Amino acid sequence: MKADLVSINGEFYKPEDAKISVFDRGFLFGDAVYEVTRSYGRILFKIEAHVDRLFRSAASINMDIEKSPEDVIQELYRVYKAVNQDDKYVRWQVTRGQGVIGMASDLTPHCNWVIYVKDVDKISSEQYAKGVRVATTSRLRNTKQALDPNIKSGNYLNNVLAFQDAMKKKSFECVMIDSRGHITEGTTSNIFCVRDGVVLTPPSKSDILVGITRTCLFEIAEEIGLEMHEADLTPEDFYSADEVFLTSSTREVLPVSHVDATAIKSHGMGPITKKLALAYKDMVNDYCERAKKEHPWK
Amino acid sequence: MKADLVSINGEFYKPEDAKISVFDRGFLFGDAVYEVTRSYGRILFKIEAHVDRLFRSAASINMDIEKSPEDVIQELYRVYKAVNQDDKYVRWQVTRGQGVIGMASDLTPHCNWVIYVKDVDKISSEQYAKGVRVATTSRLRNTKQALDPNIKSGNYLNNVLAFQDAMKKKSFECVMIDSRGHITEGTTSNIFCVRDGVVLTPPSKSDILVGITRTCLFEIAEEIGLEMHEADLTPEDFYSADEVFLTSSTREVLPVSHVDATAIKSHGMGPITKKLALAYKDMVNDYCERAKKEHPWK
Repeated sequence: MKADLVSINGEFYKPEDAKISVFDRGFLFGDAVYEVTRSYGRILFKIEAHVDRLFRSAASINMDIEKSPEDVIQELYRVYKAVNQDDKYVRWQVTRGQGVIGMASDLTPHCNWVIYVKDVDKISSEQYAKGVRVATTSRLRNTKQALDPNIKSGNYLNNVLAFQDAMKKKSFECVMIDSRGHITEGTTSNIFCVRDGVVLTPPSKSDILVGITRTCLFEIAEEIGLEMHEADLTPEDFYSADEVFLTSSTREVLPVSHVDATAIKSHGMGPITKKLALAYKDMVNDYCERAKKEHPWK
Repeated sequence: MKADLVSINGEFYKPEDAKISVFDRGFLFGDAVYEVTRSYGRILFKIEAHVDRLFRSAASINMDIEKSPEDVIQELYRVYKAVNQDDKYVRWQVTRGQGVIGMASDLTPHCNWVIYVKDVDKISSEQYAKGVRVATTSRLRNTKQALDPNIKSGNYLNNVLAFQDAMKKKSFECVMIDSRGHITEGTTSNIFCVRDGVVLTPPSKSDILVGITRTCLFEIAEEIGLEMHEADLTPEDFYSADEVFLTSSTREVLPVSHVDATAIKSHGMGPITKKLALAYKDMVNDYCERAKKEHPWK
């Protein structure tokens, strides 16, 4: 399993022993929300923002999390401390719980909480330098009107199917478009392009999950005086861009070498991508230093 | 749990002991397909059609089921026989299995199979006579381009959220529309209306799961010389219909009394709905008689 530890409703399990009822609605219907973050040293980066998003996701599907954000953070640190290692991937999934099988979402008395701690999938220094391949796919992104991609839920088949296209095309990631032909996001990342010194990314109101790293970059851009805007973007906007990059909590700021068959002009890490990647690392360091000083759960 | 028995990969469990790895992709991503049928006496009605659909759903998400349809039917009967009771609900869910956490669908060596046998949720004779309330919802049905509703998958959050609207509106079922404003289907049913002696239902090419009961009714209509067509239908077409009914494998042919605030003209079971409901019961009886004679797995 390559995981170190799993906690289910507060109890610790070895990965191979970590099991959930087959009547859990996460298993039956994907009726669940989740988050992924990573630690730097022993600090869970931007944990407050991830927990906020978990609560927002849960509220969007009318799920009562039954805990306060502070309790969630404390519990995540309690589990994390049991692993007692630096630089880990942490995933926590909250389901609507187990009970009678049925569509009605009031059939279960309590949520189930599952927290996974494992190694971060490593991005090689070559990938950071040379960039990764991204493919577009004819599979459209789920829409807000049907199932809002800004809910980080247990319904990830849309992404899994899009990623099958990435695999077929030997690409690192696949970006989905919407019904108007605009780029939305990768299966587990947001995407940006740089054109004439301006950084562009699909709008938060489009069919995307508003990434925490994406939000960090907007803060950084403001701080360092870099122009960064939301915009409706087509695949052609990416093909002809000066630089293209992906963001995610685990991959940080990752340059893109190719979009489909088109080699991006920067040929790997471009100057603005690099500026943002370095500033992001600074932000991580600052956050971790501050967290160590300020927070009781450090 | 109100279930009688669960089988996981061929082993029998009491419902309270039936557990699956939290690394199962059904739990993580809803990366699973499933089917529900019911038995009449000891016969699983139209089991071949359900198993066919399971294989079609699995193929649509590039999942290898690793068994033949005949093996699946035999296994379903083996589990069913262990319960040894008439008239049960049988659900079987096949996930892409457990392994490393990640979008890539080649990270797991084998599928996981879970079979549930439990009581059928009873529809009262009053509901069959007077009909049930149906609400429309502003939540759009998933689209074929994003995640085809004709894949009966572990991604049912679109349906769960629509059903929350039904609950709010004190309705038995909720029907979703598509982006053009056409009715698609209920959260676990197909919907039909009768106008001037003609039965109409949303097209199989629209964003619906093509129900087995729906297919049975088309066969019956042909046989008894009743006009039945696929058509693009709006909520107004249902409000002004002579009769409206739902179909599903567990509810059979169920009349609708109201669509939103509008009382349907038939005031409960209408004449054509009744004709179809009775003919469906005949079809079930015929199937069961034949199955008892012909099939080694009876």
